[in-house]
Amino acid sequence: MNKNSSNMMALAPNTSNKRETVCIFGTGDFGRALGYKMLQAGYPVVYGSRSRQTSSLIPKDAEVLSHTEAAQKAAIIIIAIQRQHYNFLTPLAEVLHGKVLVDISNNLKLNQYPESNAEYLAQLVPGAKVVKAFNTVSAWALQSGTLDASRQVFVCGDDMEAKQMVMDIVRAVGLTPLDQGSLLAAQEIENYPLQLFPMWKFPILLSLGLVTFFFFYCLTRDVIYTYIYEKKNFSFFIAISIPNRICPILALTLLSLVYLPGVLAAIIQLYRGTKYRRFPDWLDKWMLCRKQLGLVALAFAFLHAVYTLIIPIRSFVRWRISSQTISQALNNKTEPLDITNAWISDSYLALGILGFFLFVLLGITSLPSVSNSVNWREFRFVQSKLGYLTLILCTAHTLVYGGKWFLSPSSYRWYLPSAYMLSLIVPCIVLVVKFVLIFPCLDKPLTRIRQGWERNPQYSE
Amino acid sequence: MNKNSSNMMALAPNTSNKRETVCIFGTGDFGRALGYKMLQAGYPVVYGSRSRQTSSLIPKDAEVLSHTEAAQKAAIIIIAIQRQHYNFLTPLAEVLHGKVLVDISNNLKLNQYPESNAEYLAQLVPGAKVVKAFNTVSAWALQSGTLDASRQVFVCGDDMEAKQMVMDIVRAVGLTPLDQGSLLAAQEIENYPLQLFPMWKFPILLSLGLVTFFFFYCLTRDVIYTYIYEKKNFSFFIAISIPNRICPILALTLLSLVYLPGVLAAIIQLYRGTKYRRFPDWLDKWMLCRKQLGLVALAFAFLHAVYTLIIPIRSFVRWRISSQTISQALNNKTEPLDITNAWISDSYLALGILGFFLFVLLGITSLPSVSNSVNWREFRFVQSKLGYLTLILCTAHTLVYGGKWFLSPSSYRWYLPSAYMLSLIVPCIVLVVKFVLIFPCLDKPLTRIRQGWERNPQYSE
Amino acid sequence: MNKNSSNMMALAPNTSNKRETVCIFGTGDFGRALGYKMLQAGYPVVYGSRSRQTSSLIPKDAEVLSHTEAAQKAAIIIIAIQRQHYNFLTPLAEVLHGKVLVDISNNLKLNQYPESNAEYLAQLVPGAKVVKAFNTVSAWALQSGTLDASRQVFVCGDDMEAKQMVMDIVRAVGLTPLDQGSLLAAQEIENYPLQLFPMWKFPILLSLGLVTFFFFYCLTRDVIYTYIYEKKNFSFFIAISIPNRICPILALTLLSLVYLPGVLAAIIQLYRGTKYRRFPDWLDKWMLCRKQLGLVALAFAFLHAVYTLIIPIRSFVRWRISSQTISQALNNKTEPLDITNAWISDSYLALGILGFFLFVLLGITSLPSVSNSVNWREFRFVQSKLGYLTLILCTAHTLVYGGKWFLSPSSYRWYLPSAYMLSLIVPCIVLVVKFVLIFPCLDKPLTRIRQGWERNPQYSE
Repeated sequence: MNKNSSNMMALAPNTSNKRETVCIFGTGDFGRALGYKMLQAGYPVVYGSRSRQTSSLIPKDAEVLSHTEAAQKAAIIIIAIQRQHYNFLTPLAEVLHGKVLVDISNNLKLNQYPESNAEYLAQLVPGAKVVKAFNTVSAWALQSGTLDASRQVFVCGDDMEAKQMVMDIVRAVGLTPLDQGSLLAAQEIENYPLQLFPMWKFPILLSLGLVTFFFFYCLTRDVIYTYIYEKKNFSFFIAISIPNRICPILALTLLSLVYLPGVLAAIIQLYRGTKYRRFPDWLDKWMLCRKQLGLVALAFAFLHAVYTLIIPIRSFVRWRISSQTISQALNNKTEPLDITNAWISDSYLALGILGFFLFVLLGITSLPSVSNSVNWREFRFVQSKLGYLTLILCTAHTLVYGGKWFLSPSSYRWYLPSAYMLSLIVPCIVLVVKFVLIFPCLDKPLTRIRQGWERNPQYSE
Repeated sequence: MNKNSSNMMALAPNTSNKRETVCIFGTGDFGRALGYKMLQAGYPVVYGSRSRQTSSLIPKDAEVLSHTEAAQKAAIIIIAIQRQHYNFLTPLAEVLHGKVLVDISNNLKLNQYPESNAEYLAQLVPGAKVVKAFNTVSAWALQSGTLDASRQVFVCGDDMEAKQMVMDIVRAVGLTPLDQGSLLAAQEIENYPLQLFPMWKFPILLSLGLVTFFFFYCLTRDVIYTYIYEKKNFSFFIAISIPNRICPILALTLLSLVYLPGVLAAIIQLYRGTKYRRFPDWLDKWMLCRKQLGLVALAFAFLHAVYTLIIPIRSFVRWRISSQTISQALNNKTEPLDITNAWISDSYLALGILGFFLFVLLGITSLPSVSNSVNWREFRFVQSKLGYLTLILCTAHTLVYGGKWFLSPSSYRWYLPSAYMLSLIVPCIVLVVKFVLIFPCLDKPLTRIRQGWERNPQYSE
Repeated sequence: MNKNSSNMMALAPNTSNKRETVCIFGTGDFGRALGYKMLQAGYPVVYGSRSRQTSSLIPKDAEVLSHTEAAQKAAIIIIAIQRQHYNFLTPLAEVLHGKVLVDISNNLKLNQYPESNAEYLAQLVPGAKVVKAFNTVSAWALQSGTLDASRQVFVCGDDMEAKQMVMDIVRAVGLTPLDQGSLLAAQEIENYPLQLFPMWKFPILLSLGLVTFFFFYCLTRDVIYTYIYEKKNFSFFIAISIPNRICPILALTLLSLVYLPGVLAAIIQLYRGTKYRRFPDWLDKWMLCRKQLGLVALAFAFLHAVYTLIIPIRSFVRWRISSQTISQALNNKTEPLDITNAWISDSYLALGILGFFLFVLLGITSLPSVSNSVNWREFRFVQSKLGYLTLILCTAHTLVYGGKWFLSPSSYRWYLPSAYMLSLIVPCIVLVVKFVLIFPCLDKPLTRIRQGWERNPQYSE
């Protein structure tokens, strides 16, 4: 390694503790914000600009030079310019040779260009060492110092030493660098800040659809029907009673939808006799958003729990209980304790509590820091064993809730069954199929298939 | 460093962005799954196999060659073969010289062999650079792409550059490499995926034992005794009432067991007059699972909270309150408000709420990502100061719950005291001893001992 | 690089798996604890000490030599000595030349010295490679093995290879090294273990002050006033009723204080017409502790939720409901259902539940591991959009809670309005100003200012 060339100096351990000069091409908002931060961290900063007249917005301690002069002063050059102007760098190829170029650009759309901006930059200036960094941080966040959000800066590049230099700067300005490997990772890094919860879209749209359906279903049965046939105005059911019907239905349905794709995948593999053929696309996508489905289900379960606990405080409930007590008192009769009723009431509450408890446990283990601290075997144990136990408990909770009136014709209104009965369809299907699948006659071939065995090896040739 | 040898080429920065060929020895399930993933990530893959006839299962884009030919094509060779077959590599020592060998094997039992598989491999092929990696990922997870679980891949090895190459591959296939240091860490890495919550075993077994004991204790007192002497069938207490007795008892007992070993350790150190002698083995083990004990206690406290909040919805409770009201109404009398009673009821609820709140706070700070972001002083403050405050509040909650009837003989049934009184034994001992230990006459020598002072320095010579 | 010098041997990949000797200067408590751990991890340890007579406390397997002899035996020397004694190293400069010196020292106060201890050490021994490490770990934690707390060891230094060697030792003793960059980071690393929740001080002091004020406010209105004018002893309100008034007030006030500084900043920027002038210091500090303010608010919201859910179990509440029912029964009248009342009661409960749910969601996303896994856009969406929605729901909850009696003169006691009305002041101001700010005539210039535009560019010249 030739350590005599000027630009390699920066790579040598810096014993004098003086920071190396950093050059920034471009005096836009982000270039200025980064310049300020780097000056604060003790780096001499030099700007490369078309016009050499210093703007009042550029940090005072920074020098402004032409691109060529500025580039010569530093071993590391931050390209704070939009991609469409990168071609102005081509004539500078000679002076940029061997320099570290930091691409900080972002696009406006996902996969806007065929290759990432950083790779495009590397093609334009083949002699330079391109490193992708800083694109996940906003100028506003850098400047206001209110980095409550992620301090993570993804860094990638093909040259290890160049990457190390950039990661040192990232640390110096108070951020956390994360090495993402070679420059091939740039595309993903550039797409990252454009996303808005992509994995959550399907679960949230699905639950919005289901919420709307069940809202009108319950409105019809509980408010409109009662108003027409019993002449009672229960419109205030919209605030608590109906949400507290919708939430458990959605929690149970979404939870069972977490386990349905696994069951479907097992059936497909058993039918095909191999694991080496891809699942249909919809199944793949479904499997990838199971965690999000489960967490949305947990949110509904949490709401259901709070809505239920609040019941005795409701003015309507207090009035109803009080009227019942008064009417009993006025009729001079005391009802004896109905043991069956007490059993049903306590059982469905207990099942609900235990199911909710396990559900919360599943939610906690899906926190990134917790799931990172368990191994694959432990994760499978929690998500599969405990997950199915949760589904069983919650399904049982709903079944026992129905109690004596389950499937009784008197509970039908306008031929509509109670809403909770609709929520039992998917979980019961999942549980029955899963129960069938654990029979040895099906479980054994499935296990073998998953270990790589094929029923018809000639098939795939 | 001789950078001219062919296999060192891969170590040089790769400016053409073309991935280096990777060789995989072994065409088993994991070898194939990894091959697929690496092809997807843009790596040319070549398999080394005994039989050169390509199986239909091997990815189409991969070449299959003899071991020697395959090894010559790549700088990095993944050994997807079981440990017992490693000795076939000995004749290949020459061609493997200077190559990076990636050991991905797992064992069936903890510490199955005296040395780790990776170290064994390094002994067999002394000229190669052995890196341990990928053993924490399952083939199924790699293939299905459903990496909900930990994406962490532990990597260790004695050669920094070899390790970097492997870590780049790990990142390229979408996983997160974690550098674990030198090859000595391989044993631990190989043991890791075999564990199933090893630290949780003792707390969970202990609480299962206690749950069983207290279940039968409460069953005897609350159901069987009532049935025999009062001819009342309270069998449905099994669903909620008895669990809601067991949960607080376990929460309090387990919480006090978190602080008992610390108190015992202080006594032992005071008695011995030195901190330089090891604690008994059981105390060491106990201290290491305190976090898990505390979290199990929190789970019981959470269940207790929900069981308690659900009380007014229970059909039995509604019936009881209604009967009392009716009987008062029929007897034409209204009870005045009992201020003492109101004080006791509100105090024990308030103490319980505050204790539970602090308990949840302790639980949140024990999340890995939270405890990593506090320093030692802050962690001690939370776990020690807030922890003892939680214990005091929860003990006071139980004491006040007893209220006027505490230690009253009328609460004994078959000479058995109320179950909650049993739960007070351990916490009271811990609190009393801790209170004694903070007296200066004991605290001062203890602090000096913990700073390294010895009462009888000659003792340990 | 001259790899023939003896001390560089340690930098070469260690193929024999034998650990390199480590030297420790100083036989104090931390030096011994670290020595034990390193011996356990397989490192030969040699102590450098003034007196060569071995103390009984020094691990038996370790050698004790003079400083010079000990330093010659190892490439890496841990300086387990206090800063004020560092000058004894000056005469050893020659033997320490090229060695890795690990500074593990801590100070007693924040920024006790102008330069960090590690930088001071680097100045004293210019030929050595100084690495800062291990200062965040306590001797007690190392020795007892009870590393429940953070296992993170911050490492910084100017020499990459020296840092790697130290990080390998850190990993070998079971801790997690975190590269913090160059030696300039040492000051911050040395300050780190001295902190005790610095960001939490203001939010906690503020809420303590508010709690005290509202406690006496509610005590006056609810207990003293009632006692004097209605001759009723409601002293037990201190346990639950008054805390349950204070908690929601603090939750709402603190939550609105999270969003107030953002609104103030917008007004300041609009007024100044630029974002390039610093905010007043108090506003900067306020903005930096918004996360902590929000979490304290969440704690109060959680307490409010539990206090509210516990209401029906309170002995006083049961007595009150029962008396009302009995008096109605005795008067032989049944009240009809008041639909307006039912609507108000259900609405404020529903608003509270939804607000609390979103509040918990905000809390979860502020967990380090969760906020690290979302990008800037997602974080803004959650903290800004969802945050304001939470504030709106909680404010509406409080407004509807007031219901028909809101602003009614009959609710005044001693000219004091109900406490909840005081809690509405700040949130209403924040919401009204925010509402004004989203009008295009203000939002457009604000957006342009935040993108770097200036109304009076000459102003800042």
